[in-house]
Amino acid sequence: MKKNVLIIGAGGVAQVVAHKCAQNSDVLGDIHIASRTVDKCRKIVESVREKKSLKTEVKLEAHALDALDVEATKALIVSTGSQIVINVGSAFVNMSVLRACMDTGVAYMDTAIHEEPNKICETPPWYGNYEWKRAAECKEKGITAILGVGFDPGVVNAYARLAKDEYFDKITDVDIVDINAGNHGKYFATNFDPEINFREFTGVVYSWQKGAWQTNRMFEVGKEFDLPVVGKRQAYMTGHDEVHSLSKNMDGADVRFWMGFGDHYINVFTVLKNLGLLSEQPVKTAEGLEVVPLKVVKAVLPDPASLAPGYEGKTCIGDFVKGLKDGREREVFIYNVADHRQAYEEVGSQGISYTAGVPPVAAAMLIASGEWDARQMANVEELPPRPFLDILNRIGLPTRIKDEQGDRPLSFS
Amino acid sequence: MKKNVLIIGAGGVAQVVAHKCAQNSDVLGDIHIASRTVDKCRKIVESVREKKSLKTEVKLEAHALDALDVEATKALIVSTGSQIVINVGSAFVNMSVLRACMDTGVAYMDTAIHEEPNKICETPPWYGNYEWKRAAECKEKGITAILGVGFDPGVVNAYARLAKDEYFDKITDVDIVDINAGNHGKYFATNFDPEINFREFTGVVYSWQKGAWQTNRMFEVGKEFDLPVVGKRQAYMTGHDEVHSLSKNMDGADVRFWMGFGDHYINVFTVLKNLGLLSEQPVKTAEGLEVVPLKVVKAVLPDPASLAPGYEGKTCIGDFVKGLKDGREREVFIYNVADHRQAYEEVGSQGISYTAGVPPVAAAMLIASGEWDARQMANVEELPPRPFLDILNRIGLPTRIKDEQGDRPLSFS
Repeated sequence: MKKNVLIIGAGGVAQVVAHKCAQNSDVLGDIHIASRTVDKCRKIVESVREKKSLKTEVKLEAHALDALDVEATKALIVSTGSQIVINVGSAFVNMSVLRACMDTGVAYMDTAIHEEPNKICETPPWYGNYEWKRAAECKEKGITAILGVGFDPGVVNAYARLAKDEYFDKITDVDIVDINAGNHGKYFATNFDPEINFREFTGVVYSWQKGAWQTNRMFEVGKEFDLPVVGKRQAYMTGHDEVHSLSKNMDGADVRFWMGFGDHYINVFTVLKNLGLLSEQPVKTAEGLEVVPLKVVKAVLPDPASLAPGYEGKTCIGDFVKGLKDGREREVFIYNVADHRQAYEEVGSQGISYTAGVPPVAAAMLIASGEWDARQMANVEELPPRPFLDILNRIGLPTRIKDEQGDRPLSFS
Repeated sequence: MKKNVLIIGAGGVAQVVAHKCAQNSDVLGDIHIASRTVDKCRKIVESVREKKSLKTEVKLEAHALDALDVEATKALIVSTGSQIVINVGSAFVNMSVLRACMDTGVAYMDTAIHEEPNKICETPPWYGNYEWKRAAECKEKGITAILGVGFDPGVVNAYARLAKDEYFDKITDVDIVDINAGNHGKYFATNFDPEINFREFTGVVYSWQKGAWQTNRMFEVGKEFDLPVVGKRQAYMTGHDEVHSLSKNMDGADVRFWMGFGDHYINVFTVLKNLGLLSEQPVKTAEGLEVVPLKVVKAVLPDPASLAPGYEGKTCIGDFVKGLKDGREREVFIYNVADHRQAYEEVGSQGISYTAGVPPVAAAMLIASGEWDARQMANVEELPPRPFLDILNRIGLPTRIKDEQGDRPLSFS
């Protein structure tokens, strides 16, 4: 039975994590929030107090922390008595925070793959470049480390595992589709850290098809999907974390990721990319200042957290799974629909932050209860999906199924 | 009789100025080129030697100079014995270089209005903010300072004066049109310093109409012009230096400036502007680095000088002048057509640099001969246009006239 949560990061997702931990403080215990900018942590603490999100009276504290500093992170884990670390900070700090958890014997979780600032889209499977290199040590030391437990990656991995367990004898195709049909009213903004957002799209698009890694360029392969609630939407094959673990865990099925983009996003992206403004490599100004263009683009774009108040509309994210059941071909769409305004009203964040921030709290609750305290490193599809989806069903991200029998909530009877 | 030229700056325009000074070294004497980066000056020296541009054997030397340092500039003027300074450096150094010229008693010229790095589009007339504040002192000390003597501003001001002197009794409208129908083959590039290029378009568009300053937004007012050689082209009313002196010197005529833009330029510009990437105000990255977005955009764009080798096509720049002559309404188009490839073959620069760099050399020759050694500050339309256009006719920028009598070269018989 582990408890007391240390949240690393203080962006829009961290805000959701803090609120959801507070709403389940009877299970999770104390809540500590740490990031480079302690003021941002304090604002989250204030927001939790304002909305009276704490279910039971526990410690709720803000801390300044450079999460690249392993010793400082270990010290904070120890001094706060945290046994569960939810890392929703920058993707650059994953390996440092994981190290701190392994050294202090506490559970680790993140929602996106580790990245090094100056590299993009390394050799697939991406998890093999950093995280999985620590798998043997985690197993040996009995460290629970759950990788990529946001929505995508995360819940969509659980959907794939659910399909494998319950709906198919053999799966041939997993197509993960992520559509944000919301409108933030700004000229242009990304829904999470622009640096990470653009880095996803500037490199090679990897998909797992016919038992091998296939490569495409971004926006090279487009497809229209007809989805519940949000309707017909154009999406493009995109590189994404979950493809890199599902490629290993879906018994050879093709795994592709599709993200919805409007023409306006593509135009802005294309202009910035062609000009070299999305580059992670430093350039030198005429005045001799070394600067990474992508970091300047991030600096001028709206803070994703600032989009929340005016955000309208819904997201639809899910897995189209094809394969055989009882000798017959079938297709199932397992999905969630979330609402931007509802998310804002509940936790002060927009829908994309909400879908990314609620799942690690569900996972933390399963670590607290022992059900997911795996004492090894795991991607989400390697863990039993039902308990996870059951909690999500209760805390804000219900699962629905659409197949030849219609469109209905996932049943937990 | 002044001679020996100091060129400030080492970009594409400086390259043209150096070559043209060399081709007229019998009149102009020694040639010194100075900029922050002495290597760029050395490359220009090499290029002049390679193309054997020197008409007579004179000194041709490169110097390192921070032109914001008035004392260093004065020292260089004195040590090189330069009596004519052609400032084609950054628009930020105008006032420092002018000061150095006034203190050493030598002639000053530039091709663009002074700008302060952190301000855009100040109160009209722009010349009143900086340059004209030195006019009384120039007159008192007998300093020749010719402002804005590139093509536009510069030659187009002489065209306006020519129209006033020879083609009209009363002028009602001066519409200056600048069309670059060339193609550099890159995704996107500006034809001169991107920082200055974009700064022209991010602020208010000032025009002089009905005896007052009128304001518009960039790309708000568009118009199709049908021009010799380059044909029908879409242009937009744009803020530009020459409007700010012609407003004073054209006896109350309306003065507008129009620049040609393709849809692609407008799209890239619109994306960058709306994102805030054209801002001259510093932003702070997440890592705490202070940086001016526009300087980063400049750093990622192609160096305008690098466009020269592959540049194809022509430019057409001129003045549509309307008014009354002998009681009748008439319209005259006074213009020049330049060719990118021809410019490259002659002086190693593209056409836009060529049209900007040849006029100050013609002006320098008129200062050397005494005809334009005005011993006061002057905008180009305040000086006799015929000698200037006569030299330009001979050294690469011939003037043509189109009116009800047809389309013909300006006659100098």
